[in-house]
Amino acid sequence: MKVAKFGGSSVANAAQFQKVANIITSDEARKFVVVSAPGKRFKDDTKMTDLLIALAKKVIENNIYEGVLVQVVARYDEIVTDLQLSRDILDVISAHLQQLIDTYHDQPERLLDALKASGEDNNAKLMAHYLRQLGYEAHYVSPKDAGIFVTDEPGNAQVLPESYEQLAKLNERSGILIIPGFFGYSRSGHIVTFPRGGSDITGSIVAAGVGAELYENFTDVDSIYCVNPSIVEHPCQLKELTYREMRELSYAGFSVFHDEALEPVYRRGIPVCVKNTNNPEAPGTMIVATRDHRERPVAGIASDTGFCSINVSKYLMNREIGFGRRLLQILEDEGISYEHTPSGIDNMSVILREEQLAGDVERRVLHRIVNELRVDEVSIERDLALIMVVGEGMERSVGIAAKATAAFARANVNIEMINQGSSEVSMMFGVKADAVEKAVRALYEVYF
Amino acid sequence: MKVAKFGGSSVANAAQFQKVANIITSDEARKFVVVSAPGKRFKDDTKMTDLLIALAKKVIENNIYEGVLVQVVARYDEIVTDLQLSRDILDVISAHLQQLIDTYHDQPERLLDALKASGEDNNAKLMAHYLRQLGYEAHYVSPKDAGIFVTDEPGNAQVLPESYEQLAKLNERSGILIIPGFFGYSRSGHIVTFPRGGSDITGSIVAAGVGAELYENFTDVDSIYCVNPSIVEHPCQLKELTYREMRELSYAGFSVFHDEALEPVYRRGIPVCVKNTNNPEAPGTMIVATRDHRERPVAGIASDTGFCSINVSKYLMNREIGFGRRLLQILEDEGISYEHTPSGIDNMSVILREEQLAGDVERRVLHRIVNELRVDEVSIERDLALIMVVGEGMERSVGIAAKATAAFARANVNIEMINQGSSEVSMMFGVKADAVEKAVRALYEVYF
Repeated sequence: MKVAKFGGSSVANAAQFQKVANIITSDEARKFVVVSAPGKRFKDDTKMTDLLIALAKKVIENNIYEGVLVQVVARYDEIVTDLQLSRDILDVISAHLQQLIDTYHDQPERLLDALKASGEDNNAKLMAHYLRQLGYEAHYVSPKDAGIFVTDEPGNAQVLPESYEQLAKLNERSGILIIPGFFGYSRSGHIVTFPRGGSDITGSIVAAGVGAELYENFTDVDSIYCVNPSIVEHPCQLKELTYREMRELSYAGFSVFHDEALEPVYRRGIPVCVKNTNNPEAPGTMIVATRDHRERPVAGIASDTGFCSINVSKYLMNREIGFGRRLLQILEDEGISYEHTPSGIDNMSVILREEQLAGDVERRVLHRIVNELRVDEVSIERDLALIMVVGEGMERSVGIAAKATAAFARANVNIEMINQGSSEVSMMFGVKADAVEKAVRALYEVYF
Repeated sequence: MKVAKFGGSSVANAAQFQKVANIITSDEARKFVVVSAPGKRFKDDTKMTDLLIALAKKVIENNIYEGVLVQVVARYDEIVTDLQLSRDILDVISAHLQQLIDTYHDQPERLLDALKASGEDNNAKLMAHYLRQLGYEAHYVSPKDAGIFVTDEPGNAQVLPESYEQLAKLNERSGILIIPGFFGYSRSGHIVTFPRGGSDITGSIVAAGVGAELYENFTDVDSIYCVNPSIVEHPCQLKELTYREMRELSYAGFSVFHDEALEPVYRRGIPVCVKNTNNPEAPGTMIVATRDHRERPVAGIASDTGFCSINVSKYLMNREIGFGRRLLQILEDEGISYEHTPSGIDNMSVILREEQLAGDVERRVLHRIVNELRVDEVSIERDLALIMVVGEGMERSVGIAAKATAAFARANVNIEMINQGSSEVSMMFGVKADAVEKAVRALYEVYF
């Protein structure tokens, strides 16, 4: 039995609802369905979630909000009208939104979370309604009813372990169960949302909880590409990827997947299939625990900009036990996370997302490094990009690094940093941000 | 004015003493001379320092030590006889040794340090004696008299900052001043030796203290080679190196220099010249603050075996602020120093000298990693070698990494790890220990 999750663009309007209904009902194994809020219908459209955030803002600022509320209901109205559904559901939706506003108008964080969550919640009700009208047994199941319990961190919920036991009981229910993505309930009964993109997380949690044979993630591309298609035109499509590869890729600039979403299925070894709602016949990309990587040791190339490097040097640094640990402690005290720490005998670099040094933080961090670590020199190198070459077969393949570095040399790109560990599935290269596209295209040429 | 330091092989016997005297007296600027203990005269000879350690052991174990004492004095006797020096100096040496034994026989650490130091001390007296006999004004100056004060850590002395002020006063003295290497005096008046190879340290401290224009380090090779001559036959000789390059190279397997010896001269920007006592006409290798590296971005290739890598992986590791810091804290608690920490998104490797995990340490470290960090996997990869490609010009040169990795591929050597930081003068490669010579030879081919 399968869990099928449909992203925002898959449920953006009536035509998409019809495609989704066809997909769900064409395979009896698709018993659990997770839906997002309506996404964009055309390029410059506003996503439902953004409308809802705007609505929450108006309410919080005590502004006239009715205009935005009308826009929200109008999006559902369009779907209801186009699908010729009974219009009672619109009253249910309107009443529900008004009730959230009345209940939480003086609790800004709660209001924001509740309104954001309503995008998925109402869409799930609509989908169940539609399937029933088509003659199928379909039930809306709220996350509370399903048993998705989370930590009480508005906008950043983490699933609580007891949820999985609760979710397993959904197997006893009949019909197609439609569950809204993106949120759960705290132990005290509040709606709390996952980080953005969190419908992927809900799908993954449900798949883990019910013990699905497959977690299908329906989106609007035929498959995952081996490189960002905005850098390389028509790049090759990936048939199969491992969890580890997917995670490395999605972390460094691949936007198909919210990069933490896979944890629940990864832990249980449930395979994931990324498919296209608009072309469900395409095989999609399978994400699995292991793959035969002899033919294609490299799975993909990811890249992201916005990094900087703090470079410190101190004569005889390597004789100072604890130097690296103390440098990392200073960053930790400031709540800064880092990506890599390449080091020489007497120097060490820490690569991190540049935005973390905003405002006063940079001055404080540098001050502490100079004063507490008594370094000879400290400097910050800005505008760096990281490029990750990812593949399970890399660690056992002679010549992978040679191909990559030759590509950089041919593209006349200077490599600022290289980082490759012993048991790793990726090789990291740091380059200047303005050289990243050139470098990625050169890497694509040699590997694909 | 120059400081000239002569290593053990340069002062091993009378013939070498003559060469050294010629070198010293051929340049009036050579006012300060630091000498080692007599080194090996032939391949299987015993160094004076090892004889003295054997002597100390006999005394400490209450064994008959007179036989070894005779051997020690016999080494000096040979030099005295061959140089036709007055034999009174031998009485001075014998009496001095006996006095040390009598004073320290029940303080094993002090006895060991005092006897070890006597090798250099008596040789300095001998050299001054010889120069005077040749008609030059030459004075033996003990480290106490010179003002070399050190921390009271037997066998591991660190120079105290006040020494430099004291040493500066030596400029006021007349004649050639002969100072024994390898030891200083603690504030309470005890002889304390530097780490082994510490005559280089004495020379460097003296050069810094007297503000020398040049620190000449006389040894038994014409110059520093760009790669270990036991791996590559007749490798190219280096005319010029920077301190940073020298330090990276000497750290990873280059034995010309004790790798911390350069700090005092480095701090004051005093250039170092490594020269050959047996061929003083050869220009030697200059170690300087900066060099023009456009022609030769890579200075040398060093390698060393005996490393291992602790590899840990944990899903979502990079979201855990403080993970890396806590892993390093565990190692620090065990007094373990590490070389590099290449990392991926969900894994981190720590490369360290294998010997540090001896006995119970490995079990304790692994236990703590599993229990405190809750990792998914931890393993130790053994028998690794590190290869450092070192050069000031590397960070600004496109294609350096490409050449290196292509060399590895051609030699069919798998690269286990790569580490190159942003402002670094070296690129580190980790390979299996049994592949290191093959890899170094391949690198030599591409760079030299």
